[in-house]
Amino acid sequence: MGAMKFSHTFIPTLREEPGDALIASHRLMFRAGMIRKLSNGLFAYLPLGLRSFRKVENIIREEMDAIGSLEIKPTVVVPGELWKESGRWDSMGEALLRVKNRLGADFVVSPTAEEAVTALVRDELSSYRRLPLSLYQINTKYRDEIRPRYGVMRSREFVMKDAYSFHTDEGSLDEHYQAQGRAYRRIFKRCGLTVIPVRADSGAMGGSGSEEFMVESEIGDNTLLLCRGCDYAANVEKAGCKGDDGPPSGGEAPPLEKIDTPDVKTIGELCAFLKTDAKNFIKTLIYRAVNVELDLSGAPGSETLVRTRAAPGAPESYGEVFFAAAIRGDLDVNEAKLAAALKASELSLASDTDVVRITGAPVGFAGPVGLSSVPVILDETVTGMKDAVTGALEKDVHYRHAVWGRDFTGWLTADIRTVKAGDRCPLCGGELYEKKGNELGHIFKLGYKYSSSMGVSYLDENGKSHIPIMGCYGIGLDRTLASVIEEHHDEAGIIWPVTVAPYHVIIIPIKYQGAVRDACDALAAELEGAGIEVLLDDRDERAGVKFNDADLMGIPWRVVAGDKNLSGGEPRVEIKRRSEKEARPVPLSGAAAELAEAVRSELRALNG
Amino acid sequence: MGAMKFSHTFIPTLREEPGDALIASHRLMFRAGMIRKLSNGLFAYLPLGLRSFRKVENIIREEMDAIGSLEIKPTVVVPGELWKESGRWDSMGEALLRVKNRLGADFVVSPTAEEAVTALVRDELSSYRRLPLSLYQINTKYRDEIRPRYGVMRSREFVMKDAYSFHTDEGSLDEHYQAQGRAYRRIFKRCGLTVIPVRADSGAMGGSGSEEFMVESEIGDNTLLLCRGCDYAANVEKAGCKGDDGPPSGGEAPPLEKIDTPDVKTIGELCAFLKTDAKNFIKTLIYRAVNVELDLSGAPGSETLVRTRAAPGAPESYGEVFFAAAIRGDLDVNEAKLAAALKASELSLASDTDVVRITGAPVGFAGPVGLSSVPVILDETVTGMKDAVTGALEKDVHYRHAVWGRDFTGWLTADIRTVKAGDRCPLCGGELYEKKGNELGHIFKLGYKYSSSMGVSYLDENGKSHIPIMGCYGIGLDRTLASVIEEHHDEAGIIWPVTVAPYHVIIIPIKYQGAVRDACDALAAELEGAGIEVLLDDRDERAGVKFNDADLMGIPWRVVAGDKNLSGGEPRVEIKRRSEKEARPVPLSGAAAELAEAVRSELRALNG
Repeated sequence: MGAMKFSHTFIPTLREEPGDALIASHRLMFRAGMIRKLSNGLFAYLPLGLRSFRKVENIIREEMDAIGSLEIKPTVVVPGELWKESGRWDSMGEALLRVKNRLGADFVVSPTAEEAVTALVRDELSSYRRLPLSLYQINTKYRDEIRPRYGVMRSREFVMKDAYSFHTDEGSLDEHYQAQGRAYRRIFKRCGLTVIPVRADSGAMGGSGSEEFMVESEIGDNTLLLCRGCDYAANVEKAGCKGDDGPPSGGEAPPLEKIDTPDVKTIGELCAFLKTDAKNFIKTLIYRAVNVELDLSGAPGSETLVRTRAAPGAPESYGEVFFAAAIRGDLDVNEAKLAAALKASELSLASDTDVVRITGAPVGFAGPVGLSSVPVILDETVTGMKDAVTGALEKDVHYRHAVWGRDFTGWLTADIRTVKAGDRCPLCGGELYEKKGNELGHIFKLGYKYSSSMGVSYLDENGKSHIPIMGCYGIGLDRTLASVIEEHHDEAGIIWPVTVAPYHVIIIPIKYQGAVRDACDALAAELEGAGIEVLLDDRDERAGVKFNDADLMGIPWRVVAGDKNLSGGEPRVEIKRRSEKEARPVPLSGAAAELAEAVRSELRALNG
Repeated sequence: MGAMKFSHTFIPTLREEPGDALIASHRLMFRAGMIRKLSNGLFAYLPLGLRSFRKVENIIREEMDAIGSLEIKPTVVVPGELWKESGRWDSMGEALLRVKNRLGADFVVSPTAEEAVTALVRDELSSYRRLPLSLYQINTKYRDEIRPRYGVMRSREFVMKDAYSFHTDEGSLDEHYQAQGRAYRRIFKRCGLTVIPVRADSGAMGGSGSEEFMVESEIGDNTLLLCRGCDYAANVEKAGCKGDDGPPSGGEAPPLEKIDTPDVKTIGELCAFLKTDAKNFIKTLIYRAVNVELDLSGAPGSETLVRTRAAPGAPESYGEVFFAAAIRGDLDVNEAKLAAALKASELSLASDTDVVRITGAPVGFAGPVGLSSVPVILDETVTGMKDAVTGALEKDVHYRHAVWGRDFTGWLTADIRTVKAGDRCPLCGGELYEKKGNELGHIFKLGYKYSSSMGVSYLDENGKSHIPIMGCYGIGLDRTLASVIEEHHDEAGIIWPVTVAPYHVIIIPIKYQGAVRDACDALAAELEGAGIEVLLDDRDERAGVKFNDADLMGIPWRVVAGDKNLSGGEPRVEIKRRSEKEARPVPLSGAAAELAEAVRSELRALNG
């Protein structure tokens, strides 16, 4: 084939910035002619972009193959029936793109493939000898984002590698889970990416069933808590922290007492009114939760609740349940943690009307004392409070001297606190700080959720039937590619790590004619012969335009050939690394060998 | 990596045939564990199937790259707006899977990508210097087939390579069209497929703007007309034929005369009644056509018709038009040819009610004489008829002695005849015969349809604006793979051409232990080192089971290693080609080299 000539490809570079690009990767992928927008959240890769995309794809494929995961290709459009079996047809919400075909059958444009892969496997797992089994695909996915933004970083259609594994026991699952974790670390390293692995429930909560691979990003949709003292890193949705010193010691509090608090509604106002600190308050919020799988038998207000199954095999759940959540006045409830504690698929603050109905008072006077219409969830900070102020379920009235265990207990105690910068690391007690992050990958022990709801079983050595335990392992290709650009660029353009660069070397003849042309052609042929990918800028453009485009496209090595350097004693060309400022002349005769070795050594460093 | 061990992969072979498999490829892909069904018309590729699928994909990619077509990746879900611009949102019918997203916007799950690629390109074609431009994708497509059948041969979701080219002039288009045609021939040859290239409008109709690549198949949905005398091959939808000898010479026919034909409705009954031959009849059918682009100004019945555009830039068309089609009584109207002549997107026989309204008589008495409510389309066989019988637009009445030009003329004359076996080749006059065929690929000169309706333009050397001319070039990957199996199998299973075989060699140890195990491992390592793809059947199964699976999977070369052959003087293994009956012993020491050379020489023969 020989080197690709610029005039034979289709790289529509642009000087202007796209109006809607808010981040560097979007801006640069657009300007470098890597992508074009078909519609909001729908991007097409042009040839230059696709080359880098395929390199990310191949790195991921190699690492999956290396850990024995097997590639398959399910369909993109999958039967809605499967999603009804797992219960996600109902629980998935509006991001699931549902389609009815001409015959009226329901389909889904896959956002993920737990259902499809579980369905594929369930008829084939006759024997334990087929296990463990790990299958992956690299395929188109669709999420019907309301506000797709940031180019391919958060688009509606994207490509994901998603793997699913099936095991006879937790030990086998953990082994593959660890292998996936190592593969992910290798994938990101090979792509030149600095990732923050975030174990969802490490430390305080024990176990390790989920790990997210984050990149720091100012537009990240995740808040991470990191420790200055150790390598603790957690998503705020899961982050724990060391508790404060216990409540002040001292004698028994006076008896519970009602106080009038007219026109005082916020904790701040209450503090001022009572001349005390928010730490002595119990803040209580009423929530509405949907699809609650937690067993509420015997809980306050549960008499009228009914548990149902979305499908045979799907877990039982309550459609809609109201809860009260109580937390120390200086802290905030973390809704993700609360939803996890309730095993609810959705959670939101109750409406004012519901608050009045449930607490008998307007918003602002809820409290755990005497609240019996709904289950009360106490944050861990509330247990042990010995002299607290809290709402009294009457307008303009609060209690003081409320004592946990004496005046109230909750129905359930859980860690539902939002951990913040300045809180203390659950592992080492060091100071936590915050970063914004974007999730590129996620490995997760699914447990029996899908295998059980979708009826997968296998026979053991003794012919006894069991349900396999599952794991799932996802990584977004588009996001990974965009994140490489976020981490590797400057004012002038992209600075590709050589592993994912669309070409390794760009050759720029000052004018593509005569001896310069011959030298460039020969150099390109020699490089291609050595397995180096070359783009030859044969355009009839000014040198400055070509230099700018080379910087914009971010090709790791640039070779410039002009009459001046080629004539004279020893013919020379100029070599420049994209990441460095200065070009240096090298003899034409040795240029190919030097470049090939430079490229290979960088490849080794990243892939090694 | 080393060779893949059977126990490490996931190849669920089956002895039973799937109940719904009607053709060999479906049956064998299922039994060999290559595919599984997710739902009607939705198939997942398992690891073995995906390996062969990727080989077909890579062959296609290499051949596209070789002719300078550039790979891109548009989205699978595309904005409905683009399909409205081209007019196909309305004209495409129910096979187009339309989706509304959560915001109420229209989308399409792409069955093809003329719109998407044209939209991508239109903002970038500022100058003639960007042309010619050929872009391709290998991507998921969806067609909402009512009755998907035959496994991946006619599924709802499938993968297609579709290329689109843009040119300044017809010469440039033709050059790329020819290059695509050559690439297609190479692709099919490399896959070991025998294809019948069918030029749609060669011969009689002149030009060559479309070529279909067919494989013979008893379940093919195309009828092909082939010539015994030359290489003429045409789809019945387009096939022409040499006309018969002209009408019998002789004097002027008597004047037109009405005859009563009570209880006589079919041509056969009429022939008996009038004691004459069907060749002397004019059969007239009333059709309802939809989205008719043909200009009908001045045609009978056109006064009330209104031409509209589905979108600005889309071609003008009439929503619904009725036509009469008249053809010689012994022939049949070909609806595809008639629709093409009318430039209609859909065509069907009119309802009985419409026939009465249009002809003034029940079905069976239509004729071109005096029919003035709709345009009459005459087949070429009707022009020149000098003494014909035809319906008289009255119940139980026919005309005889009808003479073309004297008693009637049509509004349009066209070739709308269904060519049949036994008709004469339009090129050489030889006898035509029929075959059923499946279309694997299609190359097509689109002309200005999309570039014009979607507003694509470029500036020439003088700054003048022009619309580029386009071509499109599709090939179905799943179908191509299935067709390879259709052509290459026997009772026991698949017989892969080595280019698309999932593995080149399968090594079968009689028992995978001791010296046999060592010999197999060493042989596998040596083969892998030589670039040969090896599957090592390490299962603890009877030899017969392994042999059967090897035959079923169709791996081109089989090596069997057992204690008996390995011990003794010179250790030996047995080698067998899948396509041959007999195994032969070869020395273990030379086995790898011999197999590697055999595989390479077959690869060369197919790829060369």
